Amino acid sequence: MAHIELNNELPGIRGLMAYRPETAEPLNALAEVLLRDDNNTLSRGERELIATYVSYLNDCFFCQNVHGSLAGHYLNCDIQQIDNIKQNFNQADLSDKMKALLSIAASVQKGGKQLTTEQVEQARITGATDIEIHDTVLIAAAFCMFNRYVDGLGTWAPKDRQFYVDRAPQRALEGYQTSVFR
Amino acid sequence: MAHIELNNELPGIRGLMAYRPETAEPLNALAEVLLRDDNNTLSRGERELIATYVSYLNDCFFCQNVHGSLAGHYLNCDIQQIDNIKQNFNQADLSDKMKALLSIAASVQKGGKQLTTEQVEQARITGATDIEIHDTVLIAAAFCMFNRYVDGLGTWAPKDRQFYVDRAPQRALEGYQTSVFR
Repeated sequence: MAHIELNNELPGIRGLMAYRPETAEPLNALAEVLLRDDNNTLSRGERELIATYVSYLNDCFFCQNVHGSLAGHYLNCDIQQIDNIKQNFNQADLSDKMKALLSIAASVQKGGKQLTTEQVEQARITGATDIEIHDTVLIAAAFCMFNRYVDGLGTWAPKDRQFYVDRAPQRALEGYQTSVFR
Repeated sequence: MAHIELNNELPGIRGLMAYRPETAEPLNALAEVLLRDDNNTLSRGERELIATYVSYLNDCFFCQNVHGSLAGHYLNCDIQQIDNIKQNFNQADLSDKMKALLSIAASVQKGGKQLTTEQVEQARITGATDIEIHDTVLIAAAFCMFNRYVDGLGTWAPKDRQFYVDRAPQRALEGYQTSVFR
């Protein structure tokens, strides 16, 4: 049960967004531009994977399943493959650039000052652009917010992971701007 | 020096926002509604104080001075009084409700699951409403994002704390929506 009375049955951040549409609007706009905007050299799948990995590090069940299922949808991976990446991305079948960006995300999850010049240089060596490094840091930072918001208010989440997999194609189609209303 | 080439001389989050106006827009909209919206039973000073305290716990010099100066401006406190609150809010001249909300913010800063039902109950006993508890959690979570964004990208910040105090009245007047452009 959530720490506050949301007056709705929606899970995770959706319940919070329906409760407080004033803050939902900029939160959804942020997710939309960061994770879905077409004008980005990181694919939607790559960006969802960064979001998933940070949510995993923050141990947020709802977010890591919503975004892990979306990453799987875009990258053509099943839950097990996404789980393998979360548990050890260095051993996964990912580009060196993606590994460098996930390493940056992991440091930002711990705290802004944990990210080193060497990690940023390593990302550049693998071909990451400044704007890709920027977006990786901001996605990681944003999910340190979303995860805390969802778990801080004690929201509920469907336990069956298939629920999230089944919803991913529809969410991929609709984006985040509409998620307040369902 | 920032980890990426921002092509501007602006400090802290302002340099990042000028570099990436697409993400600046929802970030500023979120700050505006959370910290300044008039339709809120927490005063602007109280909300800025929550932001300041979380930025202090995350050791983000830029954010704790920007928002600490704004809190001081609204609450009629000088830097020393704000510093005293950051260092030991339980000993400060604050309402029991504000102390309970700062305790909630401190838990959320550590992680969403750190917040306990007892802390939420304590806040309710002191008169906090559900929406005040919601907004406290979201402000704390949002500053876990802003702080990581500012420090993760290694932005510079004026060292002289008077700089922030001097700017606070103008920022209080203008709000956050315009901050991309200056």
